[in-house]
Amino acid sequence: MAQWDRKGMEIAYQEALQGYAEGGVPIGGCLIDQTDGTVLGRGRNMRFQRASATLHGETAALENAGRLPGHVYKHCTLYTTLSPCDMCAGAVLLYGIPRCVVGENDTFLGAEAHLRARGVEVAVLQDARCRALMQQFVAARPQDWNEDIGL
Amino acid sequence: MAQWDRKGMEIAYQEALQGYAEGGVPIGGCLIDQTDGTVLGRGRNMRFQRASATLHGETAALENAGRLPGHVYKHCTLYTTLSPCDMCAGAVLLYGIPRCVVGENDTFLGAEAHLRARGVEVAVLQDARCRALMQQFVAARPQDWNEDIGL
Repeated sequence: MAQWDRKGMEIAYQEALQGYAEGGVPIGGCLIDQTDGTVLGRGRNMRFQRASATLHGETAALENAGRLPGHVYKHCTLYTTLSPCDMCAGAVLLYGIPRCVVGENDTFLGAEAHLRARGVEVAVLQDARCRALMQQFVAARPQDWNEDIGL
Repeated sequence: MAQWDRKGMEIAYQEALQGYAEGGVPIGGCLIDQTDGTVLGRGRNMRFQRASATLHGETAALENAGRLPGHVYKHCTLYTTLSPCDMCAGAVLLYGIPRCVVGENDTFLGAEAHLRARGVEVAVLQDARCRALMQQFVAARPQDWNEDIGL
């Protein structure tokens, strides 16, 4: 665990919980500047709240961070409660975010190998809370989950 | 050229032109159902209009299409005036869109090889209008362009 990992994953989890309470897909994300722990952006999956096809936990965190100069991302970590899908991994690569911390990859294994092949450090926490929340959602709403991952 | 390619690229280009007129990055996209030519979504880069870090031409088209069942994407083509970046290519992979038509890849070469390696058909038109519009933008606003691709 690096210095801000506990904080980053807690924020991502709180976003996921809030998403769940709103009737959404319970996945949250958070972008933290590793030089001083500043939270640059936080967000959650918005498929059901906003009929969004592109606001996943990770992209929502990046979107809510707004416009940033490219160099800022190079000392950030992106936290996400669930393994990043191809789109979200692509966003990490677009901005050259060097590190991604993942709550769990048991419910869904995303593009972690692609990220590592491109030089991104990926740490998977196998966080029991993140896993339990997602498992509860997937069991209750399998079709909604499939829609979110394009199935 | 497939049946709806002229229509798809024209819409994408019109979106790019509108973005340019708004002071934005002139990249547009369009999602077309290939079974009947229905335009499911169209959009343009929104970095400057909405301080957006995730609405590129392609993702804006997908976002504006709203929630769709996963099977719909499997008979769609995504049109984009410029070669798709890692994030936008990732969105194509997330939804299993089988074909991507690109206006030009001279100004910027995105993740076309990654898409092809994953089985996506990528057609590059080298459209002179798309190229001229982007070249004009990049020459006039190099820093804004760099920001859009995370540099």
